[in-house]
Amino acid sequence: MQKQNLLEVYDRIEPYVHNTPVMVSSAINQIIGTSVYFKCENFQRAGAYKIRGATNAMLLLTHAQRKNGVVTHSSGNFAQAVALAAKSLDITAHIVMPSSAPEIKRVGVREYGGHIYKCEPTLAARQAMADEIGQKTSATFLHPSNDENVIMGQGTAALELLREEPKLRFIFCPVGGGGLIAGSSLAAIHFGINCQVIGGEPFEADDAYRSLISGEIEGNDTANTIADGLKTTLGDKNFPIIKKHVSKIIRVTENEIIAAMRLVWERMKIIIEPSSAVTVAALLRDASEFPEVYRNKKVGIIISGGNVDLNNLPF
Amino acid sequence: MQKQNLLEVYDRIEPYVHNTPVMVSSAINQIIGTSVYFKCENFQRAGAYKIRGATNAMLLLTHAQRKNGVVTHSSGNFAQAVALAAKSLDITAHIVMPSSAPEIKRVGVREYGGHIYKCEPTLAARQAMADEIGQKTSATFLHPSNDENVIMGQGTAALELLREEPKLRFIFCPVGGGGLIAGSSLAAIHFGINCQVIGGEPFEADDAYRSLISGEIEGNDTANTIADGLKTTLGDKNFPIIKKHVSKIIRVTENEIIAAMRLVWERMKIIIEPSSAVTVAALLRDASEFPEVYRNKKVGIIISGGNVDLNNLPF
Repeated sequence: MQKQNLLEVYDRIEPYVHNTPVMVSSAINQIIGTSVYFKCENFQRAGAYKIRGATNAMLLLTHAQRKNGVVTHSSGNFAQAVALAAKSLDITAHIVMPSSAPEIKRVGVREYGGHIYKCEPTLAARQAMADEIGQKTSATFLHPSNDENVIMGQGTAALELLREEPKLRFIFCPVGGGGLIAGSSLAAIHFGINCQVIGGEPFEADDAYRSLISGEIEGNDTANTIADGLKTTLGDKNFPIIKKHVSKIIRVTENEIIAAMRLVWERMKIIIEPSSAVTVAALLRDASEFPEVYRNKKVGIIISGGNVDLNNLPF
Repeated sequence: MQKQNLLEVYDRIEPYVHNTPVMVSSAINQIIGTSVYFKCENFQRAGAYKIRGATNAMLLLTHAQRKNGVVTHSSGNFAQAVALAAKSLDITAHIVMPSSAPEIKRVGVREYGGHIYKCEPTLAARQAMADEIGQKTSATFLHPSNDENVIMGQGTAALELLREEPKLRFIFCPVGGGGLIAGSSLAAIHFGINCQVIGGEPFEADDAYRSLISGEIEGNDTANTIADGLKTTLGDKNFPIIKKHVSKIIRVTENEIIAAMRLVWERMKIIIEPSSAVTVAALLRDASEFPEVYRNKKVGIIISGGNVDLNNLPF
């Protein structure tokens, strides 16, 4: 049923998204001691996987809903994705963005024709402003991660990766709001062969790590991390999926994130954002701690995006 | 004959080099108003096209020559290519590098096992030191650009590009020592359909532009450009080919180079070095001056490399 759903979602969004390339790097394989397959969603439309879920959710709106537009809040990548998907489907997009969002992501939203509303950089302020806009305009609220249709859409990146590399033993995903890792874990169960999904999270925003331990959705008191996409917390739609299917979450330091980002930029010549470097750092950490677990195994990594503010690099 | 030669070179080096991907960007196509195909030699082994020529030249050495090793001088990318190709073929590589070469390129040469010799950053000093090493060790001198076997090897990037996109009307190449553009122009003649090769060069090192006007090989009094790979001048082996087959050379400012580099990094999420950005800048400049020439045409660009010192970025 879920498997059939995922395939339907994939067929639905396929005309609107790129089937992004899977890249390998012999230098990085040598460093990690395993075979790593990078699913390059940094090459996706609008520079991140988010367009998958946004497109799926919007294609499922009724005609009347489409006419009233959509509203969302996002620190950046989902904002751009909604703006671009809305443009493709001729829907009005209202986007609430925290004042702390990287300038490049605001520029992207503006270029795609989204209406931007700036708010204080807290989850409460974001949600309050989005609710207000929804009431005024009757726009449908799209949650960036805690929405079944969004979750299923995000899962199609792992689905494509597994079709290309069916024997992956692990798939690493970053954990922010939980949509990507929840969707990826569904894809891994239905399309993988004993494929485990592992999360990567900054120590500075390790809410998902703590949520898996406590069994409840935990928040972050602060989230002082360079991985600007991973400051959000899990939701009631994705947490049950994550609890059931994600085998572990590995936390990494800010220095590990920056070093992993530099490693991929220098060795693979591709631009990945800090939130994606978290996942690479998590694999580097785990493979150095448990080399025997990864030896001769195929490991997938969802490189979630490549939207970096070049005026504000960590090196 | 030349056509047959190029195919033989391609078959010879094929096991040792990557057939690099060709990428497109709808954002950049929209800006330029044409269809651009980026041949991504930044994803090549050692991060640049240079391994093609280096490998071809080394595979043509006699057994005795292989035993005595090879010597070359290079500001960076040819150095890394020779070191890596030599490692693959179990040959000793002596590499003369100017003191001004980016640190990342020296690190690469060292990792591949090349023996580095530092010299003053002038062409005369580079050649003198390479000659001295050649006399001491009997190593064969490999010129980075003025060598027929190197030229033919470099031409295989354009050959691959034309096999994937046979209807290219133009191929843009950077012009440094002249090896890449000479080889590319041979590939364009024999494998393209009325395909013109156009060079890109910094105003700060426009020796090839002036050489085509005067009909003689010109030097640069200074070469104060961020495009560190393009400071060298043409040679007697490649200049006749360039004179015969290259239709024009477009010069660009340092600001145009940096803006083009930023454009590709931001929109395509790939890391290209300043010498490659020169070519993108040249296309941007020419297409804005002569839009009707490029409209509805397919344009190839050889993205020559992606070796950038992340500690020393222009933004």
